[in-house]
Amino acid sequence: MTVVESIDPRTGEAVEEVAPESSADDVARACAAAADAAPALDALGRDGRARMLRLMADALEEDREVLVEVTDRETALGATRLNGELTRTTYQLRFFAEVLDDGGYLEATIDHAGITAMGPRPDLRRMLRPLGPVGVFGASNFPFAFSVSGGDTASALAAGCPVVVKAHESHPASSARQLAALQRGAEAAGAPSATVAAVFGRDAGVGVVEDPRITAVGFTGSVAGGRALHDRASMRSRPIPFYGELGALNALTVTPAAARDRAGAIGDGLAASFTLGVGQFCTKPGLALVPSGPDGDTLVAALTDRVRGTTAAVMLNQRTREGFASGTQELRGSPGVRVLVGSPVDPTAAAVSPVLLEADAGQVSQAMLEECFGPVLVVARYSTRDELFATLSAVGPALTATVHSGDDDELAAPLLDHLSARTGRVVWNGYPTGVAVSWAMHHGGVYPATTSPLHTSVGAGAIRRWLRPVSLQDVPAHLLPAELREDFTGIPRRVDGVLVV
Amino acid sequence: MTVVESIDPRTGEAVEEVAPESSADDVARACAAAADAAPALDALGRDGRARMLRLMADALEEDREVLVEVTDRETALGATRLNGELTRTTYQLRFFAEVLDDGGYLEATIDHAGITAMGPRPDLRRMLRPLGPVGVFGASNFPFAFSVSGGDTASALAAGCPVVVKAHESHPASSARQLAALQRGAEAAGAPSATVAAVFGRDAGVGVVEDPRITAVGFTGSVAGGRALHDRASMRSRPIPFYGELGALNALTVTPAAARDRAGAIGDGLAASFTLGVGQFCTKPGLALVPSGPDGDTLVAALTDRVRGTTAAVMLNQRTREGFASGTQELRGSPGVRVLVGSPVDPTAAAVSPVLLEADAGQVSQAMLEECFGPVLVVARYSTRDELFATLSAVGPALTATVHSGDDDELAAPLLDHLSARTGRVVWNGYPTGVAVSWAMHHGGVYPATTSPLHTSVGAGAIRRWLRPVSLQDVPAHLLPAELREDFTGIPRRVDGVLVV
Repeated sequence: MTVVESIDPRTGEAVEEVAPESSADDVARACAAAADAAPALDALGRDGRARMLRLMADALEEDREVLVEVTDRETALGATRLNGELTRTTYQLRFFAEVLDDGGYLEATIDHAGITAMGPRPDLRRMLRPLGPVGVFGASNFPFAFSVSGGDTASALAAGCPVVVKAHESHPASSARQLAALQRGAEAAGAPSATVAAVFGRDAGVGVVEDPRITAVGFTGSVAGGRALHDRASMRSRPIPFYGELGALNALTVTPAAARDRAGAIGDGLAASFTLGVGQFCTKPGLALVPSGPDGDTLVAALTDRVRGTTAAVMLNQRTREGFASGTQELRGSPGVRVLVGSPVDPTAAAVSPVLLEADAGQVSQAMLEECFGPVLVVARYSTRDELFATLSAVGPALTATVHSGDDDELAAPLLDHLSARTGRVVWNGYPTGVAVSWAMHHGGVYPATTSPLHTSVGAGAIRRWLRPVSLQDVPAHLLPAELREDFTGIPRRVDGVLVV
Repeated sequence: MTVVESIDPRTGEAVEEVAPESSADDVARACAAAADAAPALDALGRDGRARMLRLMADALEEDREVLVEVTDRETALGATRLNGELTRTTYQLRFFAEVLDDGGYLEATIDHAGITAMGPRPDLRRMLRPLGPVGVFGASNFPFAFSVSGGDTASALAAGCPVVVKAHESHPASSARQLAALQRGAEAAGAPSATVAAVFGRDAGVGVVEDPRITAVGFTGSVAGGRALHDRASMRSRPIPFYGELGALNALTVTPAAARDRAGAIGDGLAASFTLGVGQFCTKPGLALVPSGPDGDTLVAALTDRVRGTTAAVMLNQRTREGFASGTQELRGSPGVRVLVGSPVDPTAAAVSPVLLEADAGQVSQAMLEECFGPVLVVARYSTRDELFATLSAVGPALTATVHSGDDDELAAPLLDHLSARTGRVVWNGYPTGVAVSWAMHHGGVYPATTSPLHTSVGAGAIRRWLRPVSLQDVPAHLLPAELREDFTGIPRRVDGVLVV
């Protein structure tokens, strides 16, 4: 029996045995229990589940000190960052309670019986309902916000879907403690104990995706890992939706006007953004398009200065560090590349320093167009508008794209057009690394940014992934769900084609 | 070069050469032209596309006489049915124009910048935008409503996505004429000529699914064909959404109370429903659960009488007829089956007569749990509540489930619970064969009813399949799309979490 160990990335040593790897039987039991729990979780209703999410947030807050301590020991992300991330995570649970209170997510729709141009129409009432048990894969880089108690879990539980989390091997001890807090919250709310569960180990993850009771999967991680699981989910005898948030280059464009106006500030901001959290953000800018000429030079000088002043930091785990070492090595070998900051990465050293590279836009290589996880940025210097757009056209679909423009900038409108057509979120005069939990957030995009371009993993819309519509035709009033009854008020509904709030 | 011929199913003879089968080059050209047309179709805006859809409906109406004549010759569905279906189809195009006028489908959402419990939040504005060119596979059984000018096309064009239709081999001449009408409508609206195109032949269909410019596919047809294309779409180097509406058994349950109250009427209604359009509806009831005992006997007697009085009719094509012959042969061979109406089907005869079979619920076979396309119904007689629910539990997920119940029927609530959990639409005291085009319709379900349980192919929600969200962060007001500007009114928007109509 393999035991899952908690590794301290600062020392490379195992400091805790967390759990045995889950066997195939363990996985089947967890999925069966989740399926059994589904009707009761649904029956809690919007009020009951909103209460549960708030109690889960409270339980995490109660455990804040130990959660941050254990998670820092496993991830080396530091107490400041982890306290902030835990705040985000409890905020997110409470945010989905608000989404439930609002009720608009149900898309409640009523068409009364009547005569139409295509003939008589029956009474039709449509509403979304939970898909059933779902699998969630925690990500290494956000041990709270995209892990056991993260957005996939919060949105799925809000929808009424029990969750089986595949805990990430990079923070198993944190995963187990988060799970315990969530389960306390579920219990306090009178929800079934199998409302949320966790399994450990790679085989267990595959087992969750292939379990016949699992109805959908949420995943945040690498393109390779996510794609393999997507393919399994799609090729099941009964395929299920797979929402994978994979990778992105997150190109950032500085127009000549912006470089003229704010070279120093942009250089500083860009340095802070690509080194934030040791560059381990899925929204990290990996390529910056900066004009050639003196304004661009000033920007690059400020950027270089700021990066030189950044201290070495410990990455999440050995594998991440090795990927960063090989990725930066490949980038450094690209023809025409200029190394502005950083020596070759030593994957045996715990701490890594940021790497800043520069190339002419005409020499942007395939490696520069792919995400390299970690604190590395390539600055591509462009000379003409055509060269700028040609380079942007070579960049694949991404979670974000950022533009720094000036006032009355003639490049602004064409850049927005170009980037909106291939990006999930366009950031203006800012940096992509922050991802707000809110109603209007979209954290998604066309493949390979995600495997499901219609959906988001952050923000209110994330709940839609775990719901399917059902229409009730001429069902007697007393049998209808409350939200579809004639006299129900308090949620937005579309009645005979008109939205009523 | 293979030529696509229009076959008259009444005679089995080719009566028209419609077009050459599309070559790989033809497919690539059509997809490239669709991609080139996408920005202009998007730029038409909601008003422009609403106008286009109405002009397309007008163009189809202008051609009504020839369309019905040609389509009847290819499908043998008869002028009455086809006139009704064409009315439905033009209604559907105009309905999506209304969906555009309403604008709620954009899910426009604005979060103003502010301070939240997780820190400062930027200005975020989210809206849906078109995915890009989409592929649509016409179905044989609805040559208008689920074909070239059908719901997939109407909803995709409404969304702003150019459409490449793979014309169904069972009605190529109708497909070509529908396409011409749609193109006249597009031209009249000032839309690009490549707004809608068609390709012919099976290889061409595969080519559309695999073309790198195609961003999503809509399909209505068989489980085998749909599944194969779903797998191709999922295994592309860049996977795309595949919305396949495949098959369904559409079980209909009659409670003892309903059999007592309305045996004769239900027998009549059920006969009409399963033989409608020669049983060639994806919502055809294929299994009826009827109580044993005298009330059920009365119902089955009425049903049998009515089916005996149904005349033979011509099915869509040779393949459909052969499937019906082999499917009914397998059903007749199930242990314990009783043949109430119908002799073995002769696949060489143009016209087929309906087949009505009966079995005890305890002897429902696997064949009886799968869709058999054509006018065949199996009546399963149940003795107890447990036997009823055990049989329903063996039925797979479906597009519809129907219940006939009595007043104060103790079975009503448990049946609704059970069926809502595994069905797209639950029909009460009616028949599933009619599918209204409306806001509250859901025509979908869990696999194998469809490949995408979140979505519908009929009703307002169908447009959501062709749209993806984009968030704009701190984008200057003058660059925003009109619907996201501060002072815009006229569509529902969610502003700072509150839905405003």
